[in-house]
Amino acid sequence: MNTSINIFHHFPSFSRLKILIIFKSILKMSAVPDQYEGFTVSSTKEWSNFSRTKITPKNFEDHDVDIENECCGVCGSDVHTITGGWGELGTTPLCVGHEIIGKVIRVGKAVKEFQVGDRVGVGAQVQSCMQCKNCKSNNENYCPKMVDTYNAPYNEDEGRSDKLMKDSKGNQIFSQGGYSSHTRAHQQFVFAIPKNIPSHEAAPMMCAGLTTYSPLRRANVGPGKTVGILGIGGLGHFGILWAKAMGAEVYALSHTPSKKSEAKELGADKFICTENENWADDLAFTFDFILNAADMTHKFDLTKYLGTLKVQGEFHNVGLPDEPLPGIMAQTFAPNGCKLTGSHIGSKKEMLEMLDLASRKNIHPMIETIKISEKGCKEAVERVKVNDVRYRLTLVGHREVFGTGK
Amino acid sequence: MNTSINIFHHFPSFSRLKILIIFKSILKMSAVPDQYEGFTVSSTKEWSNFSRTKITPKNFEDHDVDIENECCGVCGSDVHTITGGWGELGTTPLCVGHEIIGKVIRVGKAVKEFQVGDRVGVGAQVQSCMQCKNCKSNNENYCPKMVDTYNAPYNEDEGRSDKLMKDSKGNQIFSQGGYSSHTRAHQQFVFAIPKNIPSHEAAPMMCAGLTTYSPLRRANVGPGKTVGILGIGGLGHFGILWAKAMGAEVYALSHTPSKKSEAKELGADKFICTENENWADDLAFTFDFILNAADMTHKFDLTKYLGTLKVQGEFHNVGLPDEPLPGIMAQTFAPNGCKLTGSHIGSKKEMLEMLDLASRKNIHPMIETIKISEKGCKEAVERVKVNDVRYRLTLVGHREVFGTGK
Repeated sequence: MNTSINIFHHFPSFSRLKILIIFKSILKMSAVPDQYEGFTVSSTKEWSNFSRTKITPKNFEDHDVDIENECCGVCGSDVHTITGGWGELGTTPLCVGHEIIGKVIRVGKAVKEFQVGDRVGVGAQVQSCMQCKNCKSNNENYCPKMVDTYNAPYNEDEGRSDKLMKDSKGNQIFSQGGYSSHTRAHQQFVFAIPKNIPSHEAAPMMCAGLTTYSPLRRANVGPGKTVGILGIGGLGHFGILWAKAMGAEVYALSHTPSKKSEAKELGADKFICTENENWADDLAFTFDFILNAADMTHKFDLTKYLGTLKVQGEFHNVGLPDEPLPGIMAQTFAPNGCKLTGSHIGSKKEMLEMLDLASRKNIHPMIETIKISEKGCKEAVERVKVNDVRYRLTLVGHREVFGTGK
Repeated sequence: MNTSINIFHHFPSFSRLKILIIFKSILKMSAVPDQYEGFTVSSTKEWSNFSRTKITPKNFEDHDVDIENECCGVCGSDVHTITGGWGELGTTPLCVGHEIIGKVIRVGKAVKEFQVGDRVGVGAQVQSCMQCKNCKSNNENYCPKMVDTYNAPYNEDEGRSDKLMKDSKGNQIFSQGGYSSHTRAHQQFVFAIPKNIPSHEAAPMMCAGLTTYSPLRRANVGPGKTVGILGIGGLGHFGILWAKAMGAEVYALSHTPSKKSEAKELGADKFICTENENWADDLAFTFDFILNAADMTHKFDLTKYLGTLKVQGEFHNVGLPDEPLPGIMAQTFAPNGCKLTGSHIGSKKEMLEMLDLASRKNIHPMIETIKISEKGCKEAVERVKVNDVRYRLTLVGHREVFGTGK
């Protein structure tokens, strides 16, 4: 008999089971490095030139979960950020990516929800104060102290302090995204992934999925409602999937006629090609809700789109162009009392609902994959920039490339 | 005994009563002229030069109510229209005015709701199709076939036909407003006025009152809600009155510090002077609803205003500037998922609710009066143009001036 079995003999059977679980966890646990590795950019001028560099995570706190990354979706936000479309970079080198799937490798002492080894996801937010009225009403995605998954400064005391978090050398610490080896996030922003959703499909659900699910859910989309999904790209294709799964009548609206067959395959009941000058003529008072996933809205005749809404219908922007929306007349709202609005990702409650819906209804987004590398990241962001993706890209192979998970 | 009493003897007592009522109605009934008289303008260049001219009403149809005008409120819309701010005039001479109070002098054969002699009001709409889904859901103010009270063409068959309505000389008939002797409107757009509301106060409720009441009502404003009323003029002062009567906490927001005391008198709990650069600093996530009654919104830093809304709060435009709203970034909606919207007057259901609220709670708007005349109309629109009114003007004395009601 070997020593370990002798040790077991000193414990009653229940305790033996617990020890076995602890041992198993230790075996599954990877070491947590002080610095992570990631594919990063150094300036908006060379936005698609990625280098493999070290990156510094935030200090580990009680509610944090450490994750060994498995794959990461490529979001339009990544491209808007690295090209400078949404402003200059907060820090360099910057690692983007906020559609992360991976494995829990450590949990803070206040974390109850996760165990080492769990497969989890992280989206576009990694922290909020958890104390304000928004955080306490399932609106933590609107917390004024929210921290985006990349390019955002951390504050001390899990973000509640006014004091900026700094590393041992006194440098300010910024959040860094998932084109990388590891992720650290407050447990509120970590989500268990149902078994029947493959990681590369779950990844884009973390941002694109939730960003489209949340507004549809908050607008009570369901049977009897007519929904327009405008712009059939990464976001829009999720919009069709969710709206259909919720039971609505779904119109896909796109200026690309060739997307008709795929839109129907995704579940759209009707396809409207907005290249036709008169596309809106028969659509007055049609839509309860339009989810605008296009990011060229600044070039739209917005009045025409708004005119297709029912009384008090909503035109909801989730695509975020680099330019301002067209300046419309206040009178534009008069014919139907319509609403122009937008949102910011969604809450944990909505994320879990969405994952449950995807799992129950066996929903599969259309995903292409690229192996992560300097070249792979370059290809990925360049293709997203020109909308050459049907319909979403996931960077995969993180464990192999970064040598983690061994 | 005289003859009439002899006649009466031939009838049983119940019929006698009916005959008495008919006689009484005939005595109260004024003759309905083929043409009305009104104070009209002939061009947007001479927008404040009014002449007393004949105007041609629409053909009398089954649901129409003829009204002998008693007074008429002066609305910002009148000024936007005659100055050409909202486009060229549809017809000249044009008589504006859509806040009309008067006495019923004739009813069409399908009219059940009114009797000759009733005191009634008419607002900014005089017709809709009464058949579409909007008309059938208390949204007749969003009927695509709606006819504004002035400057709008009529179609035949109570607006349901595609054929334009013409007079005996073949000229197209446009609606004409209440700076005039009489009004003809579909019964859906005629409203009984509660006894305890004086006519000169009821008049501005017909447009300004309803325009502010409807959005507050549809947003479920009431106890526990915090409402901002932005722009304390004719519309805004009604906004304060209604929001307070509904039980909300009410902030008045104005760039004119001198309006503080009147805003408080009207019922505002707090007054925010938006001339102060930092006015919004402490107001993030404060308002459930902002009613924007200002008509200079095109010069506003809209992002600052939107930032004061709670999650999914609404910035609701009822003031209608001549210029487009500032073109905001789609991202502006992200921090709180707020909504930018507007509306068009309100429904009959809401009008009657509003009048009931005003009657029950003894609500009195602040109204100045001017006797109607060429000079009176000129003074009225010129003062409204420069916001030199606290807070709403009513043109009065119609019966005396037009020689009606004798």
